[in-house]
Amino acid sequence: MERRTWRIGTSMACLLAGSLLAIGTMPGKASASDGYDLWLAPAHEGAAVPDVQVIGDSQTLQLAATELRRNLTGAKLPVVLTKALNPALARLRLPTAELGTEGYLVRTVMIAGRSSLLITGNTDTGVLYGAFAAIRAQKTGADLTKLDLISAPRIKLRVLNHWDNLDGSVERGYAGQSLWDWWTLPDFKDPRYTDYARANASLGINAIVLNNVNASPLSLSADYIAKTGALAEVFRPWGIKVYLSVRFSAPIELGGLKTADPLDPEVQAWWKAKADEIYRTIPDFGGFLVKANSEGQPGPRDYQRSHADGANMLAAAVAPHNGIVMWRAFVYAETDPEDRAKQAWSEFKPLDGKFADNVLVQVKNGAIDFQPREPFHPLFGAMPKTPMMLELQITKEYLGFSTHLAYLGPLYTEVLEADTRAKGRGSTVAKVIDGSLEGSALTGIAGVANVGRDRDWSGSTFNQANWYAFARLAWDPSLSATDIGREWARQTFGNDPHVVDTVVSMMMESREAVVDYTGPLGLAHLMATGHHYGPGPWVNDLARPEWNPTYYHKADRGGIGFDRTRTGSNAVAQYAPQVARKLADPHTTPESELLWFHHLPWDWKMKSGQTLWHDLVAHYDRGVSTVARMQQNWDSIKDKVDAERWTKTASYLAIQHREARWWRDASLAYWMSVNGLPLPAGSPAPQHDLAWYKAQSFPLAPGQ
Amino acid sequence: MERRTWRIGTSMACLLAGSLLAIGTMPGKASASDGYDLWLAPAHEGAAVPDVQVIGDSQTLQLAATELRRNLTGAKLPVVLTKALNPALARLRLPTAELGTEGYLVRTVMIAGRSSLLITGNTDTGVLYGAFAAIRAQKTGADLTKLDLISAPRIKLRVLNHWDNLDGSVERGYAGQSLWDWWTLPDFKDPRYTDYARANASLGINAIVLNNVNASPLSLSADYIAKTGALAEVFRPWGIKVYLSVRFSAPIELGGLKTADPLDPEVQAWWKAKADEIYRTIPDFGGFLVKANSEGQPGPRDYQRSHADGANMLAAAVAPHNGIVMWRAFVYAETDPEDRAKQAWSEFKPLDGKFADNVLVQVKNGAIDFQPREPFHPLFGAMPKTPMMLELQITKEYLGFSTHLAYLGPLYTEVLEADTRAKGRGSTVAKVIDGSLEGSALTGIAGVANVGRDRDWSGSTFNQANWYAFARLAWDPSLSATDIGREWARQTFGNDPHVVDTVVSMMMESREAVVDYTGPLGLAHLMATGHHYGPGPWVNDLARPEWNPTYYHKADRGGIGFDRTRTGSNAVAQYAPQVARKLADPHTTPESELLWFHHLPWDWKMKSGQTLWHDLVAHYDRGVSTVARMQQNWDSIKDKVDAERWTKTASYLAIQHREARWWRDASLAYWMSVNGLPLPAGSPAPQHDLAWYKAQSFPLAPGQ
Repeated sequence: MERRTWRIGTSMACLLAGSLLAIGTMPGKASASDGYDLWLAPAHEGAAVPDVQVIGDSQTLQLAATELRRNLTGAKLPVVLTKALNPALARLRLPTAELGTEGYLVRTVMIAGRSSLLITGNTDTGVLYGAFAAIRAQKTGADLTKLDLISAPRIKLRVLNHWDNLDGSVERGYAGQSLWDWWTLPDFKDPRYTDYARANASLGINAIVLNNVNASPLSLSADYIAKTGALAEVFRPWGIKVYLSVRFSAPIELGGLKTADPLDPEVQAWWKAKADEIYRTIPDFGGFLVKANSEGQPGPRDYQRSHADGANMLAAAVAPHNGIVMWRAFVYAETDPEDRAKQAWSEFKPLDGKFADNVLVQVKNGAIDFQPREPFHPLFGAMPKTPMMLELQITKEYLGFSTHLAYLGPLYTEVLEADTRAKGRGSTVAKVIDGSLEGSALTGIAGVANVGRDRDWSGSTFNQANWYAFARLAWDPSLSATDIGREWARQTFGNDPHVVDTVVSMMMESREAVVDYTGPLGLAHLMATGHHYGPGPWVNDLARPEWNPTYYHKADRGGIGFDRTRTGSNAVAQYAPQVARKLADPHTTPESELLWFHHLPWDWKMKSGQTLWHDLVAHYDRGVSTVARMQQNWDSIKDKVDAERWTKTASYLAIQHREARWWRDASLAYWMSVNGLPLPAGSPAPQHDLAWYKAQSFPLAPGQ
Repeated sequence: MERRTWRIGTSMACLLAGSLLAIGTMPGKASASDGYDLWLAPAHEGAAVPDVQVIGDSQTLQLAATELRRNLTGAKLPVVLTKALNPALARLRLPTAELGTEGYLVRTVMIAGRSSLLITGNTDTGVLYGAFAAIRAQKTGADLTKLDLISAPRIKLRVLNHWDNLDGSVERGYAGQSLWDWWTLPDFKDPRYTDYARANASLGINAIVLNNVNASPLSLSADYIAKTGALAEVFRPWGIKVYLSVRFSAPIELGGLKTADPLDPEVQAWWKAKADEIYRTIPDFGGFLVKANSEGQPGPRDYQRSHADGANMLAAAVAPHNGIVMWRAFVYAETDPEDRAKQAWSEFKPLDGKFADNVLVQVKNGAIDFQPREPFHPLFGAMPKTPMMLELQITKEYLGFSTHLAYLGPLYTEVLEADTRAKGRGSTVAKVIDGSLEGSALTGIAGVANVGRDRDWSGSTFNQANWYAFARLAWDPSLSATDIGREWARQTFGNDPHVVDTVVSMMMESREAVVDYTGPLGLAHLMATGHHYGPGPWVNDLARPEWNPTYYHKADRGGIGFDRTRTGSNAVAQYAPQVARKLADPHTTPESELLWFHHLPWDWKMKSGQTLWHDLVAHYDRGVSTVARMQQNWDSIKDKVDAERWTKTASYLAIQHREARWWRDASLAYWMSVNGLPLPAGSPAPQHDLAWYKAQSFPLAPGQ
C-alpha cells in the first residue's frame, strides 16, 4: 500500500513532465523506492524462505533468524544459529576464541549429519552480526554454500552521536526533525526506533548518544530518564546501548546546587546519585558524552579545574555501573591568542595519564572543525597513556548539507591511514584508536549522525552511504573506501555492473570535488556567516577572531595561507618530529595541505610547474567540472534506477552544480580583489561581481 | 519494499512483547499500515483494472483516469471521463447546468451504444472530483452500476491554512515539521507534495495557504516566490491554488519603505508591484491571507486606519489578477478593557459594507480561540454586506495535540448548524458562509491544517478524520458528523460492520469527552502557561489580563462563570435579539454554554436537579470514563485492525486516559480550593494535591 501511493506520487511527477508512458514501459527499471529501506531492501516477494534453526533462546537470536528468513534467498542448506558455547559445536574445533564478545563466524559445516550454514559467535549479538554479514555477503554476490566469514570488530565502542535537541531540532542536521519524539515517549515507541536500531545493528554500531553535545540539563530529569529508558529497551536486543550527552553545570540548573565544581563533594554526590538513578531505569546504560569549556559550554575550567578533574568526577559516578565517559577535546577559547589549531593539543597533552580508566578522550579528525579536508589532529599519538576516540562527522555541516553529493569514505580513510609516526612508521591513526599501538583496553570511534525523520533517513540516497561507510570503518578501519562504496552500491541499487561502476565512480570523486570548489590546497573554513553552507572568504567582522575566514586564509597581495611553521604559529611542532619536519617545508608538505601550513606567494611554483594562483584556479574549475561529470554519469543510468530516487538525486546534483559554480565564482572574485591577478586563460570569469556574492544571505538555512 | 520494512518494525515491536507467532497467524487481520495512505488505500493488488476512457486532453483528466484505474474494482462497464460540453452528451440531456464550475455528475448512461459509467462536470476539476466521488462511493459500499451522483460544492473557497513557518516549524503543529522543504525548493519537488495535493483533491479542497498567519516578510521575496511557484505547479492539475499569508509591514521590512500605511501611495504601489511580480510567476495565484493588529502583528490600526482600509489596499493590488484577500477578524487588544469575546464584533461590525468586493472576512467559529466548545461567533449574521468565511481549527491546539483522540466533526457541525436568527429562524452559520442567506458572490471556509511530515500526515490515524471531516463539510456543510465519520471509517479501516460501528462510536463521543475533562458547562481557556496542553485554571499572573484562565472562569467562593449578560459584559447583546434573549437568562441558556454566559453560585440548581458543583464534577468524571470506554472499544477490535495503527492508537489512548484524569484532578483540586466544597460521594479524590499540579511544567511542549 505504501509503495503504491508513492508510486503514484512519482509517476504523477513524471506525468507532469509528459512521460508517463515512458516510465510505465521502461524495461529493467526497479520499482519506486523512497529510500526508507536503506541498504536493507528485502529479498523479492515469493523467494523461498530458508530453513533457519535457532538453538538457544533470546530475543536477539530470534531477530537474527527473522532477518535471515526475510533476506536470504535460495539457501539450499539449513541455516543454524547458535552461540559458540553450544557443546554440539565443540568437535568442530572452530576458532571461536578469536571472535571476542562481538565477532562472528559463518561457515558451512556438518551438524547432526547435515551440511548446514552455521552462524555463530560468543554472544547473541555476535550471532546477530553474523546473520547480517551473511545477508550482506549474499547481496553483494557471494555463494552461500561457500561462505567462510570470520570477523571481530577492531574497535570496541562504535558510536553514533546525535546532535538532537529535546525540542526536536537537530544541530547541523539536514534530514528533518529528530528521530526521537520525546513528547510521546515513553508511552509510544515508534516502530521507526526499531527500524533505526536494526539498520545500525546490520553494520555493528553498538552505541547511540541520544542528544546534542550542547546538552540541555533536562535530559537528566526523571521524566527524560524514563523516555531514554524506553529507547534503551527498543535498542537492547539489537546490541545497542544508549548514552547521554550531559551539561556539566546540570548540578546547578537541575540540582539547585551553587556550583558544578568537580572537586566539590556535593557536586560529586549529585552526579553519583544521578548516575544511580539512571542505572535503576537502564541497567546497561552506556555512560556520558561531554562537551565542556568549548564554544560557551560550562566545564571544569570555570572552577580552575582541569579537564581530567571534570572527566574523572563523572567517571567515578558511572564506574560502579561499568559506565564510561567520553570527554571531547574540541576546545578553543576566544581569550586564547594561540592558533586555534594548537589549542586542544596544548590543553590536553599535559593531561596524558591523568584520566580515569573509564574515560576516553574524543578527538575530531582534524584540529579545526570537520572541514572538507584537514590534516590529521596532532593529538593522535600524542597521548599514549590515554584511550583516544576518533570523532568523525557524518552529517555534512561543511560539505553542502543534504543536497551536495559527497561520499565521505575517502575522508574517513584518509585520517585513519594517516601516519602519526608516534612509535615509528605505521603508527596510523587507526592503530591509535583501535588500541593496537598502545594496547589500550578501551577503544572507540564516533560519528555525528546524519539521521532524521526524512523518509530516506539521511536527506538523500547518497548520504546513506556515509552512515554506512562510517559504521563499516568503525568495525574495521582497514577497509578501503572504494570497497565499502561498492558494497553499499550493490545493496542499494542492485548488482548491475554498469550501475555499480557508475555509482562508485561518482562517489569516489565526489569529496575531492567539494574540496576543490570550496577550499583547495589546504584552504579551509571559508564559509559565510550564519550558516556553514555558502562561500564567505571575505568575512572578517565576527567577534571572535577565529570565527572569521580571513583568520584562516590570511590572503593579501603578497600571498595566501596560514604559516604554521616556526616563522608562524609553529603548530607543526605538535606533530611527531618526522611529521613535523615534512610539514615545516612547503616543498615536502603535500600540496593538498599546502596552505594549511604555509603562507606562500601567489606565484609560488607548484609541482605542476605552474604558479600557485594558476593551480588554485584549476582546482576550483576542476571542482565544478567534476560535478558536471557526476551529473552525466547519473544521467547514464537513468533507466536502471527507480524514478523516485533517480529524480531526487538528479535534482540535488543540479543544485550542487549551480552551487559549486557559486563557490568557485565567489571565491575567485574575492581572491582577485586581493591579489589583483587576472584569471588564467580559459577559466571563465565569475558570473557576478564580488558585491553580489557578498550580498547573498540565508537567514533560514537549516541545521542551526 | 516499503511495507515490508515497516512490517518488520511492527512485528519486532510485537516480538519484543513475545507475540510474534500470534501476529503471524491472526486471522482476518489487515496487513501493517503506517497511515500514509490516509483514506485512499488503493484497491487490492491483482484486482482487474477497469476500462477507463478519457475524452479530452488535460493533465487533470489523466489524473482522474489514473485514480479510477488504480482504485475502482470489478467495474463491468466502461468508465467514460469527459467534460459536459462534449457534444456526444448533448442528447442525454443531463442536468449539468446545476454543476457549476466544480460539481460532478456520475451516472450509468448509454454512450456509443454501450452502457457506460459516465463521470462528467463542466470543468476538468469537476470531472476529477467526480472520479474521487465514484471511488469513495464504491469503497463505502455502493454498487458501481447503480451510481447516480450529482453534487456541486456549496462553498466556493475551500481552504487549508498552514501555520507553517519558513524555518520548517509549524505553529500549533503536532505532526512533525512543515511539509514544505523550502531549502530544496524550487529545484526538488518532493513527491509528497503531489500526494498531499491528491489527498486534498479527493475531498474537494481547492485552496492552500502555505505559510503561517504570523507571517515572515521573506515569503514575499523573489527567492520564495519562486519556491511558492514550484508548489503551485505541483498543485495546479489537482485543482488547487496557492495563497500566501502576508505580513502587513512587509513594505517596510522587505521594501525599505518608512511606513506600511495603507493610504500611502508608495505603500499601495509597493503592494501592487509585489502582486504583479507574484502573478508573473504564478498566473493563477489565489491571493493573500492577513492577520493584522492581532497578538502583536502589524496592521492598519498602527496608522489609525481601519481594517477595511488595510484589506482594500491589498485587494486592489490583487484585483487585476482576480486575486482575493482573506482578512481575519481575530483581533483583541491588551489595551482594550472590553470583554475579549466582544472585541472582534465591536471592531468589525461597523465596517460592514466597507470592504472591497474581493475581500472575505475570516471569522473563527467562536469569539475566543478554538476552545473545545465555544458558542458561535456573534459576527456570523452580523455583517450582511460582507462575505464571511468560517475559520475552523483542524490541528488540536486546545484538544490534546496529536495524542488525544477527539473527532471534530461534531464541533464543526455544531457551529454550522447554529442559528444566528439574523434573518429569522434557520439563519444558520452554514447559510451565512455558503452565501445563501445574503446571496454573497464570494464564499469560503478555512481549516487550520493538522498536517506535517509525520508519516501518517496528521500525527495519528484518528486525526486524519478531522482533515477529512473539515473538507467534506467544506464541500457540503449540511452533511452529518456521524455520516462523515462512518464514511471515513469505512475507507480507513474497511467495511467490517463491527469495526466501523466501534470506530464511529468512539469518534462520536470523543470531542464531548475532551470538553468534559477540560472545560465542561461552558468553561474554557483553562490551560497552563507556555503551552495549550495541560490544566492551569489557577493561572493569574500573566501580563495581559485576557491571557489568564482566571479571567475566563472568575471562580470564587460565591460561584463560577463569566457574566456576559447585562449585569456583566453584555456580550449577549452582540447576538440577534432572539438569541440574545435566550442567552441572557441562565434558565434558557443551554447548559453546555452556561458558564460562558453566566456567573452562578456553586449550588445553582441544574436541570438534573443537582447543584452546579455536583454536575460539574459529574462532567469531569464522565470525561475520564468516556476515555476508558474508548480504550475498551479499541481493545475489542484489536484483531481486526493492523498491528501498527492499532498499537499507536492504543498507546495514545493510554496517554489520553492518564491525562484526562490529570485534567480532572487538577481542575477539581483547584475548584475545591476556591469553593471549599467536598467532592460528591463516589467521586474519587485527586491523586495529588494542588501544589503538585501547579508544579508541573512542559517547557518543551511541541507546536510553540
